[in-house]
Amino acid sequence: MPKFVYAFEEGNKDMKSLLGGKGANLAEMKRIGLPVPSGFTITTDACNAYYKNGKKLGKDLEKQIFELLERLEKVTNKTFGDIKNPLLVSVRSGAVISMPGMMDTVLNLGLNDESVKGLAVLTENERFAYDSYRRFIQMFGDVVLSIPKYEFDRVLDDVKHTTNAKNDTDLTVEALQEIIRKYKGVIKRHAGIMFPNDPREQLIMAVRAVFDSWNNQRAIIYRNINDIPHDLGTAVNVQSMVFGNMGETSGTGVAFTRNPATGENKVFGEYLLNAQGEDVVAGIRTPKGIDELKDFMSGKIYNQFMDIAKKLEIHYRDMQDIEFTFEKGELFLLQTRTGKRTAKAAMNIAVDLVEEGKITKEEAIMRIDPKQIDQLLHPTFDPDGLSKAKKLAKGLAASPGAASGRVYFTSEKAVEVADSGEKTILVRIETSPEDIEGMDKSQGILTARGGMTSHAAVVARGMGRCCVAGCGELKIDEEQKQFVAGGVVIKEGDHISIDGNTGFVYKGIIDTKDIELTGSFGVIMKWADEKRRLKIRTNADTPRDAKTAVDFGAEGIGLCRTEHMFFAEDRISIMRQMILSDTKEDRIKALDKLYIFQKEDFAGIFRAMGERPTTIRLLDPPLHEFLPHNNEDIKALANAMNIDYIKLKNKVLELKEFNPMLGHRGCRLAITYPEIYQMQAKAIIGAAIEVSKLDGSNIKPEIMIPLVGHAKELEILRELVEKTVNQTLEDGCYKLEYLVGTMIEIPRAALTADEVAKHADFFSFGTNDLTQMTFGFSRDDAGKFIEEYKNKEIFENDPFTTLDVSGVGSLISTAYKLGRSVKENLKIGICGEHGGDPRSIQFCENIGLDYVSCSPYRVPIARLAAAQSVINKNI
Amino acid sequence: MPKFVYAFEEGNKDMKSLLGGKGANLAEMKRIGLPVPSGFTITTDACNAYYKNGKKLGKDLEKQIFELLERLEKVTNKTFGDIKNPLLVSVRSGAVISMPGMMDTVLNLGLNDESVKGLAVLTENERFAYDSYRRFIQMFGDVVLSIPKYEFDRVLDDVKHTTNAKNDTDLTVEALQEIIRKYKGVIKRHAGIMFPNDPREQLIMAVRAVFDSWNNQRAIIYRNINDIPHDLGTAVNVQSMVFGNMGETSGTGVAFTRNPATGENKVFGEYLLNAQGEDVVAGIRTPKGIDELKDFMSGKIYNQFMDIAKKLEIHYRDMQDIEFTFEKGELFLLQTRTGKRTAKAAMNIAVDLVEEGKITKEEAIMRIDPKQIDQLLHPTFDPDGLSKAKKLAKGLAASPGAASGRVYFTSEKAVEVADSGEKTILVRIETSPEDIEGMDKSQGILTARGGMTSHAAVVARGMGRCCVAGCGELKIDEEQKQFVAGGVVIKEGDHISIDGNTGFVYKGIIDTKDIELTGSFGVIMKWADEKRRLKIRTNADTPRDAKTAVDFGAEGIGLCRTEHMFFAEDRISIMRQMILSDTKEDRIKALDKLYIFQKEDFAGIFRAMGERPTTIRLLDPPLHEFLPHNNEDIKALANAMNIDYIKLKNKVLELKEFNPMLGHRGCRLAITYPEIYQMQAKAIIGAAIEVSKLDGSNIKPEIMIPLVGHAKELEILRELVEKTVNQTLEDGCYKLEYLVGTMIEIPRAALTADEVAKHADFFSFGTNDLTQMTFGFSRDDAGKFIEEYKNKEIFENDPFTTLDVSGVGSLISTAYKLGRSVKENLKIGICGEHGGDPRSIQFCENIGLDYVSCSPYRVPIARLAAAQSVINKNI
Repeated sequence: MPKFVYAFEEGNKDMKSLLGGKGANLAEMKRIGLPVPSGFTITTDACNAYYKNGKKLGKDLEKQIFELLERLEKVTNKTFGDIKNPLLVSVRSGAVISMPGMMDTVLNLGLNDESVKGLAVLTENERFAYDSYRRFIQMFGDVVLSIPKYEFDRVLDDVKHTTNAKNDTDLTVEALQEIIRKYKGVIKRHAGIMFPNDPREQLIMAVRAVFDSWNNQRAIIYRNINDIPHDLGTAVNVQSMVFGNMGETSGTGVAFTRNPATGENKVFGEYLLNAQGEDVVAGIRTPKGIDELKDFMSGKIYNQFMDIAKKLEIHYRDMQDIEFTFEKGELFLLQTRTGKRTAKAAMNIAVDLVEEGKITKEEAIMRIDPKQIDQLLHPTFDPDGLSKAKKLAKGLAASPGAASGRVYFTSEKAVEVADSGEKTILVRIETSPEDIEGMDKSQGILTARGGMTSHAAVVARGMGRCCVAGCGELKIDEEQKQFVAGGVVIKEGDHISIDGNTGFVYKGIIDTKDIELTGSFGVIMKWADEKRRLKIRTNADTPRDAKTAVDFGAEGIGLCRTEHMFFAEDRISIMRQMILSDTKEDRIKALDKLYIFQKEDFAGIFRAMGERPTTIRLLDPPLHEFLPHNNEDIKALANAMNIDYIKLKNKVLELKEFNPMLGHRGCRLAITYPEIYQMQAKAIIGAAIEVSKLDGSNIKPEIMIPLVGHAKELEILRELVEKTVNQTLEDGCYKLEYLVGTMIEIPRAALTADEVAKHADFFSFGTNDLTQMTFGFSRDDAGKFIEEYKNKEIFENDPFTTLDVSGVGSLISTAYKLGRSVKENLKIGICGEHGGDPRSIQFCENIGLDYVSCSPYRVPIARLAAAQSVINKNI
Repeated sequence: MPKFVYAFEEGNKDMKSLLGGKGANLAEMKRIGLPVPSGFTITTDACNAYYKNGKKLGKDLEKQIFELLERLEKVTNKTFGDIKNPLLVSVRSGAVISMPGMMDTVLNLGLNDESVKGLAVLTENERFAYDSYRRFIQMFGDVVLSIPKYEFDRVLDDVKHTTNAKNDTDLTVEALQEIIRKYKGVIKRHAGIMFPNDPREQLIMAVRAVFDSWNNQRAIIYRNINDIPHDLGTAVNVQSMVFGNMGETSGTGVAFTRNPATGENKVFGEYLLNAQGEDVVAGIRTPKGIDELKDFMSGKIYNQFMDIAKKLEIHYRDMQDIEFTFEKGELFLLQTRTGKRTAKAAMNIAVDLVEEGKITKEEAIMRIDPKQIDQLLHPTFDPDGLSKAKKLAKGLAASPGAASGRVYFTSEKAVEVADSGEKTILVRIETSPEDIEGMDKSQGILTARGGMTSHAAVVARGMGRCCVAGCGELKIDEEQKQFVAGGVVIKEGDHISIDGNTGFVYKGIIDTKDIELTGSFGVIMKWADEKRRLKIRTNADTPRDAKTAVDFGAEGIGLCRTEHMFFAEDRISIMRQMILSDTKEDRIKALDKLYIFQKEDFAGIFRAMGERPTTIRLLDPPLHEFLPHNNEDIKALANAMNIDYIKLKNKVLELKEFNPMLGHRGCRLAITYPEIYQMQAKAIIGAAIEVSKLDGSNIKPEIMIPLVGHAKELEILRELVEKTVNQTLEDGCYKLEYLVGTMIEIPRAALTADEVAKHADFFSFGTNDLTQMTFGFSRDDAGKFIEEYKNKEIFENDPFTTLDVSGVGSLISTAYKLGRSVKENLKIGICGEHGGDPRSIQFCENIGLDYVSCSPYRVPIARLAAAQSVINKNI
């Protein structure tokens, strides 16, 4: 029979998977000689055996528990259930990965009709003893016997009423004894058993209850959310009680070895005299700052604790979160663990620890959660304002940041108001490319439909604009220009606030805190850059985005979409002229006008990027995206363009597609209308020549053909582009290096990548579309069921957020191998949303891509994640 | 220097790729002693060298030509350009694969101012000689010098006018001589050269012209259409002229060794006395039946020709198409080739040839073009009626057959009129599942939009209903209930005829010829069945379709779609109730009603199929397909169902999808609403029990889960289905074998097929969707560019018709290997449209699938193609 129970003295910090986090750390502290109340840990193996055994503890386990209990009695010199010097214990869960508040705890176990008297004597406080006893019975009834709390509350209220006690503290010993009698009756009535007077029976029942709580509903949900495996099991810690509430020389507190908000290297904590741990948390009394402890007992406890805190931090080589209690002037440690911290604190602490010689740079890199960095790059709401604000609804936290402004329901109106200097929030059922300007000029975007990779979400992230998407609770009435949420009607012009970090929507204005990049941020990034192999590029469509990304450390553009350039007011009408042209000649006339704009656009981007490689994707969306769709807008456009309404309407209908995602778009457009790509190629090279000449820099354009599914498409279009480029260079009497490559975003392109590679200088995996095609669902439509898929554990992650390694990843690997088999030096990167996702970046590192490209605000995340990927790979 | 020129005596029929089809057969006939005018062939290699050489013949080739020419002079005892006994030759192209009429020919080459006199003496007909000369100059000017024909016509008309000649035949020798003079002037003026009097120069120029014609526009287009490689080159045949127009003992004719329409074993041909080959074709004089030749010259020519015909057929082991000429009572053969024939004739001839011991069964199987079989299975228009009918428009020949009827624009109206006994043609912009009943009851379907795999096309083929789809010329006005095409307005109730074999739409009624399956059809099918390895199943949704398919030889159902069952009038309202249910309970109530219908449906199909395995696919389309979409219909439905219009409208909007193909459908529906599949599983098994009990047969249901992309989906749904099935069997106190499997139609399912196979008894490749996802375009939307892709040679074939082996095929191979690696005996088939396409069937045979499944009317095609695939594979 395996060893299922370990005295604290027998364990250490490396036994987490067996003893749980709490148990291992208690053992470790004991091992290094710190004052920890004695106890023992029942292992996770025991928990798993319990479930395997049909939820039976088994005689052997019980035997081991009682052996350790006897040993505990010896060590503490107390006896379980003793009338004079009773041993009382806490029974706490302790999972391998912390699940705070998810599982059950029983305190003061060991109290019964005898031992309560002993406690009264020991504490010299009869009331305290009986109040503890009553609380224990209630906790036992609740946790172990699943009796609804209100049953006990009713008894309490009754007795308070009959004894005229206003507060719990007014209850006399007699009243408490009556409550205890009645509590026992509740237990008898509801659980059908007598309250167990035998502390050993109490203990066994409590252990079983803690094991059971591993699989309670909220624990399961928590594990699902946090990707914690369900078969880890929990350990149970049985520890002799110490009391911080044994009078004015007792107390309890919590402290961090450094400031968890700022990272400052100074112990940060709070304590309460004559209180138990719960009291600090409950906030009934205001705790004191740890510094005040200096004045208590001539600083005895303070000095001892400070020594221990330093010792623990050095020992664990990281900032610690410590719980302590002092009973009658004696200090005990109840827990230590690595402390949670803000991103800013994490950066500062990691850098400080390296400078203090406590950890290596690599360790510092690994200490930062890349996802947390986002906090540093976007404004957040002031916590005070936030706590007071009225929540209206919750959507998806689609793009980080926090923003307040007046509500507008159309892009035009939002632009108009924003231009007048007001802050605006654009609220739409869903956004479309026509909303770009309104999205750009608003502080934030709120949509009722669409997932994490809907148009609104993708564009907002790209712009670094705050966005809450898919907020289904919102009932938007675009006609009435209002929405209803949380029972409140919000009309056009009303103020709301949206939190892109949490997905919450609030009424009114909330103050925000601004971005603050401390020196440590730069230091960590520098270390990450030294370590990483992957290049980090950005997805940027405007000079402003490009500049933001370069400031964040981008080394090139991996994806510059050209279609957004056509939506600005002065361009869309020319674009529409182009689309509505009946002949190639008319089309070319319109394209000639667009050329002027495009060249300007590209020149701006080249100027922002300098000699960094810049990948420009030629026109991708289906043409109907540029046309209006409802009859009124069509009429208005027909009037504006002075063309026949019916003709326009027919053209719109003709271009309408059943599945636009799977329609006439990308390079397919250029096969039909080569003149579009010709214009774009000419504009790219024209701009590159111009900027190269003016700035004297070597602009490095990389022309990318989207949506290739067949090598022949690329062959034809590469020839077309090259011819145009060479002609443009010749006309400009200039020479410059350029590449022509393709997106790999269609499964067929990946499957035939050896053929495709023959005509490509580079591959860039468009993992958004590739994920859509590989799974056979669109980002927009999958929102309806993807949450359910995650709940049912079909998907571990949203495949649009984290790359699906088995499916999409297998296509990427295939394409990588096939591509390189034909061209050894084929440049290969990724430019989908996944380019900024740490887990996906790990995959990119593992298979050996050259670069990842992500939205500007994710560049720092990607830099860090790329460094971590190298370290992980080498482990 | 390679041998570029072969005398007929040096070649044989196996040298086609070098000598071209015509040259090889002329050589072969010469070789076996048949009377063929002497000559020689310039090889395809010479043609390719010509192009390689920058379109120069080169001295060596010219030398070889002249060597063979001298030899020809010796053999014929005639001299090139001779004034007394001139050698005249024809110069004809002869490609490896016949391209009739695509390339150039020059006759009577060798005529000049001297030899024309010789010809006059030889023929004792001066007028004939000069007329031949004039024609030669005109042909030479046209073919060799590219001078527009009308230039010569103008001269001819002028002279006719000045000499008062009404017809060409009225022209006197003097007039002809004047024309010749003027023709030479035309050549001087337009080509800038003198008409070459030297026959050798004429020959060299003609050879070059024939080589050039290999790459003329129409030849290139022809090769594109017929998948003929562009680098084969053409041979040139130079042959001494014989004249069928040298008086009443001369003549010319064409004959087939068997009847090409019926296959009857009797020479079938026509001839004209005193005429050249062209005259038979031109149809100025009515040719006589070959039998009449018996009376000519005491049957000398007839008997000789019949002997030769029989000899040639035996020699070539197939029905021959022979051209012959007799000059002054002497018979010459000018060409023999395998004769084109109707499907019916092909069947009869193949069977007869086997019975006559001339070919093997395998050869007979290979002689039938599977695509041709379609002709036998569907009615066709009577050719007489067809020739007189007015064509209105041309669309895609989407589903074979021919139908006439009254035009109706809604399914309801078509059903109503059809029920009254009238024949109807349903005309729609595009069809949707709601049109099923109207499609079924109409004679044919005509749509303005959609490709070969649009809803209309797929469903019509499945039903064996004639369909012309994507007829863009049709301007349909559904409100006015009329369409305009070819300048004609067709109103509701007017008669039209549509030809699903050609795509033509006609005004009025045209008589049809009915289906006629001769005995040979059955014989060939039997031989094919003995040879093939692949099982042939069918895609059938109704008992009637199932029965049709079984009659055509289907061995099971590979795909029974269940959604069509919900569109009938009595069911759609219940289906809508189900969709509009707010709670699971309401949904189950509606499903309980649908269950009754479903069970009935399945029982009907099981009865039709007996013990043949029957794969039933659970509900696949997104729910919004079952709801109306425009406001009026929604209002009507809300009234009919007595529910709130706004609520219904919201539900419709909520279910609307951006890309329905990539939306909430297939097994994704069942993850969200498991009760739908539960109902279906219960109905399937309930029906199977019922039929098994009643008929005493072992019904073999195979339950298929559609659209699986992740193994976990199948795991969950298999468990659901199994639980339901087992419960149903238990309730019915019955045992039967059943399988649960999945469609592989999502790329990810193919890529992770090892995982998927763990939960599947069978895989069925849904190649329609798999093609869509792999290429990233939808069938409906790709219509816009797929033709252009074929024209630009990006696609060799429409990938929705013929399986794309490199892309989709690679996924299928991967899935096959992964699946079988987990389960050796995994049943694997294909049920997309490709299951009935011969080239795709070859792929299925090659990789080793168990079965293909296709629409009922394609079953015979698939049986034959499967047999041919085995033979091809073994070659």
